[in-house]
Amino acid sequence: MSVLIVGSTALDSIKTPRAENPRLLGGSASHAAVAASFFAPVRLVGIVGEDFPKKYLKLYQQHRIDLAGLQVEKGRTFHWSGEYEVNMNNRRTLLTELGVFETFTPHLPDDYKRSPFVLLANIAPALQHHVLDQMERPKFVVADTMDLWLNIALDDLVRLLKRVDGFVLNDSEAHQLTKEDNVFAALRKIHRMGPKYVIIKKGSHGSILSGPDGHFLCPAYPLHKVVDPTGAGDSFVGGMMGYLSTARGGVERNLRRAMIYGSVVASYCCEGFGLKRTTKVNRADLEKRVEELEKLTRF
Amino acid sequence: MSVLIVGSTALDSIKTPRAENPRLLGGSASHAAVAASFFAPVRLVGIVGEDFPKKYLKLYQQHRIDLAGLQVEKGRTFHWSGEYEVNMNNRRTLLTELGVFETFTPHLPDDYKRSPFVLLANIAPALQHHVLDQMERPKFVVADTMDLWLNIALDDLVRLLKRVDGFVLNDSEAHQLTKEDNVFAALRKIHRMGPKYVIIKKGSHGSILSGPDGHFLCPAYPLHKVVDPTGAGDSFVGGMMGYLSTARGGVERNLRRAMIYGSVVASYCCEGFGLKRTTKVNRADLEKRVEELEKLTRF
Repeated sequence: MSVLIVGSTALDSIKTPRAENPRLLGGSASHAAVAASFFAPVRLVGIVGEDFPKKYLKLYQQHRIDLAGLQVEKGRTFHWSGEYEVNMNNRRTLLTELGVFETFTPHLPDDYKRSPFVLLANIAPALQHHVLDQMERPKFVVADTMDLWLNIALDDLVRLLKRVDGFVLNDSEAHQLTKEDNVFAALRKIHRMGPKYVIIKKGSHGSILSGPDGHFLCPAYPLHKVVDPTGAGDSFVGGMMGYLSTARGGVERNLRRAMIYGSVVASYCCEGFGLKRTTKVNRADLEKRVEELEKLTRF
Repeated sequence: MSVLIVGSTALDSIKTPRAENPRLLGGSASHAAVAASFFAPVRLVGIVGEDFPKKYLKLYQQHRIDLAGLQVEKGRTFHWSGEYEVNMNNRRTLLTELGVFETFTPHLPDDYKRSPFVLLANIAPALQHHVLDQMERPKFVVADTMDLWLNIALDDLVRLLKRVDGFVLNDSEAHQLTKEDNVFAALRKIHRMGPKYVIIKKGSHGSILSGPDGHFLCPAYPLHKVVDPTGAGDSFVGGMMGYLSTARGGVERNLRRAMIYGSVVASYCCEGFGLKRTTKVNRADLEKRVEELEKLTRF
């Protein structure tokens, strides 16, 4: 079954202590869509400007990503620029040029509206609502977010939580949202806000799922070198939704393994700038790391 | 087989945002010995002063800990006082009174010298050396440490690493010792310093084993409430060594599971001040959490 993914489609200029990479393909929807494409047909909803490089459109197409929902508008593509510190954990934003993103209203092509799996990747909660308003009885809806929306659009986000099956956020966002230091106390509070499934991401420390079947401690694939973590969280949730949409036996039964696949796609994402590494791997590479994770966690 | 444990035997005064607990039984050897006692007979090597409460000697005995190696000397017992911040991760030392510990020289009773499993719990590396000097062909020796010894006794510690089978340290100590940000780069460097097995502890994020059989990602048992993390690391390594010493089939085959047991004892340690909670659990309680960890990590 196909996965509908809405989010940002951007150009990322990323600086690390070792290198500078201008105008890479980036954005939450780009990372999530490529990640999901290893498992399922993907429908992308986003917006780019006239300056959006043709090679990036080709790259989407090489991943068999349906671009009927990608609006190309007059103006410039959303451009984000950031810099990482030497330990690759802390980053600061140098520049945000919204461009055509400023007036983005996602319009779904008719056949998109019946997509069974929906990933509302990181984007303003009002736009996530707008996509859900157009959907016709989706089977499984997951929303991702970021600290910015907790700061400037909390009400929209809280309303969104009542409309989604799963909610993904990182540990500091969970703390910000619930004021709880303990991750399990935070999970309980977030469940009460709506979602049946809550996943808290902890970067290189993995992630925790909370759902009707209890908790799952999902490991991160251990990386010997991190080149650029931008988009790792988007790759995680994209890979997870891609795997889920094709797995037999329902969400509950497959969600843990879907997170493992997401974790593995995210690990490849971190090994190159932007999508450079992710777009060079294949399904067999993913299976190899999933097997490794099985060995790494067996006791 | 019995486990020989040398380390500090102390009185801990622990302050948290919620409570103050003066002169609890503490010290690396106390925590490690109680943890190991769930699995194996334990021989304790340490020193206390005349002020050491009789009830704490009884508590050791209730755990069938052999006290022939515990020196009781004129003077006061080592007293440490610390305060935790509200998130229970950061702590600061308020007071350190060495007392009889200042002139401690560990003397092993003759039958201790043939102990097959030796845990050099956190204590000055010179004293860890002194214990090893007295041992007769131990089967498996593990050393723990702390940042203090990296700061003031690095040479002794580096020499020690050539004499032990396993070395346990936390992630910030691994960074300090190797100057490596990446945990796997740090593990490689530490192996080159001597130990066949290296374990890096990451607190609530679990621990990583590196050995001839590759890596193992050991989860921490997820705690819904942390009362006092003092001694958790000592409990981890103590439980691990206790389990290892009685498991059939050798170290390599049992080390992963031993770490899981250590992780579970450490989780109980965190649920009460000092040793209050740990001393109230039994083997069945431990098995229950080991089973839970199996469920929490299965995919």
